Amino acid sequence: MWFARRKGFEQLLREQAAAWAAKWEESDIVIEGDAAAQQGIRFNIFQLNQTYTGEDERLNIGPKGFTGEKYGGTTYWDTEAYCLPFYLATADPQVARNLLIYRYKHLPKAIENAEKLGFTGGAALYPMVTINGEECHNEWEITFEEIHRNGAIAHAIHDYIRYTGDDSYLAEYGIEVLVGISRFWAQRVNWSSAKNQYVMLGVTGPNEYENNVNNNWYTSTIATWTLEYTLKALQHVQETEPARYAELVAKLKLNEEKEPAQWQHVIDHMYYPVDEELGIFLQQDGFLDKEQTLVKDLPASDRPLNQKWSWDRILRSVFIKQADVLQGIYLFEDRYDLETIRRNYDFYEPRTVHESSLSPCVHAILAAKLGDEERAYEFYLRTARLDLDDYNNDTEDGCHITSMAGTWMSVVQGFGGMRVRDNQLHFNPFIPAGWSSYSFKIRFRGHLLNIKVTKDNVQIENQSAEPLTLQVFDQAQTIDAHSKAEIAHQLA
Amino acid sequence: MWFARRKGFEQLLREQAAAWAAKWEESDIVIEGDAAAQQGIRFNIFQLNQTYTGEDERLNIGPKGFTGEKYGGTTYWDTEAYCLPFYLATADPQVARNLLIYRYKHLPKAIENAEKLGFTGGAALYPMVTINGEECHNEWEITFEEIHRNGAIAHAIHDYIRYTGDDSYLAEYGIEVLVGISRFWAQRVNWSSAKNQYVMLGVTGPNEYENNVNNNWYTSTIATWTLEYTLKALQHVQETEPARYAELVAKLKLNEEKEPAQWQHVIDHMYYPVDEELGIFLQQDGFLDKEQTLVKDLPASDRPLNQKWSWDRILRSVFIKQADVLQGIYLFEDRYDLETIRRNYDFYEPRTVHESSLSPCVHAILAAKLGDEERAYEFYLRTARLDLDDYNNDTEDGCHITSMAGTWMSVVQGFGGMRVRDNQLHFNPFIPAGWSSYSFKIRFRGHLLNIKVTKDNVQIENQSAEPLTLQVFDQAQTIDAHSKAEIAHQLA
Repeated sequence: MWFARRKGFEQLLREQAAAWAAKWEESDIVIEGDAAAQQGIRFNIFQLNQTYTGEDERLNIGPKGFTGEKYGGTTYWDTEAYCLPFYLATADPQVARNLLIYRYKHLPKAIENAEKLGFTGGAALYPMVTINGEECHNEWEITFEEIHRNGAIAHAIHDYIRYTGDDSYLAEYGIEVLVGISRFWAQRVNWSSAKNQYVMLGVTGPNEYENNVNNNWYTSTIATWTLEYTLKALQHVQETEPARYAELVAKLKLNEEKEPAQWQHVIDHMYYPVDEELGIFLQQDGFLDKEQTLVKDLPASDRPLNQKWSWDRILRSVFIKQADVLQGIYLFEDRYDLETIRRNYDFYEPRTVHESSLSPCVHAILAAKLGDEERAYEFYLRTARLDLDDYNNDTEDGCHITSMAGTWMSVVQGFGGMRVRDNQLHFNPFIPAGWSSYSFKIRFRGHLLNIKVTKDNVQIENQSAEPLTLQVFDQAQTIDAHSKAEIAHQLA
Repeated sequence: MWFARRKGFEQLLREQAAAWAAKWEESDIVIEGDAAAQQGIRFNIFQLNQTYTGEDERLNIGPKGFTGEKYGGTTYWDTEAYCLPFYLATADPQVARNLLIYRYKHLPKAIENAEKLGFTGGAALYPMVTINGEECHNEWEITFEEIHRNGAIAHAIHDYIRYTGDDSYLAEYGIEVLVGISRFWAQRVNWSSAKNQYVMLGVTGPNEYENNVNNNWYTSTIATWTLEYTLKALQHVQETEPARYAELVAKLKLNEEKEPAQWQHVIDHMYYPVDEELGIFLQQDGFLDKEQTLVKDLPASDRPLNQKWSWDRILRSVFIKQADVLQGIYLFEDRYDLETIRRNYDFYEPRTVHESSLSPCVHAILAAKLGDEERAYEFYLRTARLDLDDYNNDTEDGCHITSMAGTWMSVVQGFGGMRVRDNQLHFNPFIPAGWSSYSFKIRFRGHLLNIKVTKDNVQIENQSAEPLTLQVFDQAQTIDAHSKAEIAHQLA
């Protein structure tokens, strides 16, 4: 205070302005030809940078940030599933790394949490909601059933390393979290003699309009993905840092003979519900027993369901609160061909009421991938100005901070088609019909890029001192330091 | 008070003693050769008569009666499923009738309750717990999922008429309740295009160690039974009391063309989970996906599960709190051959932890039916002195009143093998090895009977002024007024 007073208002203002200028330099999105969209996305980016600076790994992101009391400042899986990509792409890697270390430091509490439920041997179940590592939610159908959050926390480690290339994170922190979560999954499944496969009973998926279902496809998929990734991660550390590997084996009391073999057995024999005839993954066992009505058949007066219908009716209906199977397809899209993605999208989207603000972004990204630019833009619009326009009449509860990160994802991963694969950035952009251009800033492994998409072409400016090779429309492009490449749009 | 003072203590005591003598005259059970068993059953009968006299149809039976504050004096399905048989067999028919009228008077509230959940057109969902007809429970997995109680309330009407022969109850009261409940079931099922059958999604069966399951066999079975019985009841009233029938059609706004046809369609196309290979009914979809461990494999230190295990573990385990499929087989036993009953009993009993005091009586009755006298007696013992010996260390919460009625059922329907079929009493008694004799009193359609079972024979004394024909060991016996028949035990 005394220090601030000595600096004086003018100096503080200059420093504040400079700090924000640096933030904008790295994270701005510019939209030309649509002032409302421009205002919306900048409001969101401002709020995200306002909420989390990444300087203190004891802090995390609440769904309302510091803008409202709803959710009490606690942390959800929103951080890993929706916010991480924004901070990875627009800030120093330390920022995203601190979000991960937050969970690393809560590992002992996650192990305690699992022990309370009867899990043993270092199995970790991260809380659905937390402020200090302990479970702060109080409903059984959420706390010990909505366990897919454990997978999101594992996946965030992969996401961070894929983006940053910071493999060292595994040996230093990641492995311990991955092993804890893998131990949980391996105990959480059980062998079904009837199916001769492992099943995952009694779960609640991302679609919270279902409770206590068996074999939620998303949860089972992210569970075995975690096991696979943990096995790879262990192998990587063993090969690259054998001394640290030995240390970890001792610290974690890892049974090198039994545990990896058991995990592999689960990977090899997991049951996933599918419908062969429709060619889709089933959200859960028995999903097709529900009355197969569509959102378009719902009278407007019935919406939103969570205000107009009884919980009984919602639970038994086919209607989906937020992306569930599609969330899994989004996370693991490289596993599925376009036709599989399309069939699932075409099946699930018409049953999804998007009554979570975290739902549309996933649909926007998948619609974009499927070439449905109009729907992608529609989904983007649903959240872009959610709080500026108080669209859901609930901004007084606070801004939808984590959903704002989803809106950012809609632009960058949806319209921009940005992905990271094999240590390279990929872009497959299109431009929404009503915009004359848009551009976004991306930090990637020491490079700062400005990607501008116009009606005519895609301009990628490498603002850093090293050349960078990346993929645009699946063609390699090497862009020299302080240079710009222009690539013509592909014909659809 | 003034009136009581004028009578004086001696007179009041005499009146009280005479009133109790009359109760015992109609409801006593005498066990010779086992003083502890004698004390146990008399304590139970005393408590049952102390709890409910049947003089006021605004009153009902709480699981703790007036002996403790647990359950707050509210009424559960225990009344219909466990208590009704006691009052039917040991008191004036008006007593059981008043228990039914209690529900009749709550019908408007049951319709309101269903409306709150989105049901329409007079569908009635009776509350899980009530004191005034409104739902007094607060957990979704119970209030709108444990809907089998609706079936028990319908079945009680059938039970009352089967026992008393009082067909007039249907036209006067029963039909309205049956139609309300049938309308609920018809809306609560939905057509599964995948199965080409009706399914019943999102229910909790009598086994409360499962929540939100699909196609609970017991619930689906009692649902279609209700529809069948309602159709028969409507036909009966139409044939016997056409004027009253017309009145009811108008009052209930019964669509005579559509509603009965729709109910019949549900009856004809209902899905029930079964396992053909094991030859059993499945408690619910996916039950065989659970790890098939048995109660005998549980370490003693894990019991009772509800104190030692997390709710997560209990829900996902195979262990059954109280009879579920077997409850259905008990209610509708005439539908199933002995081998079917045996296969289901042999499958489910070893998975049942009986952590509800309402569970053993059903198992005692089925074990007796299957000729397993030893197990029948074992099950009887579990509840016979539950409160006298404070067996579960919880008598301070109050006595297990409704479970006491179950103990009475174990003796009369289990050991005594008493049933009512085709307007006749049936007995198939055996005597537990350690007893020298037991006898019980039964009121049946104006007759008072004393049934005594000794090591040698079955003695049935008709204490009334009219002869009675009944079936003992499936042989007709006509017993004259004020006479006794002696029938030798059958060889097993």
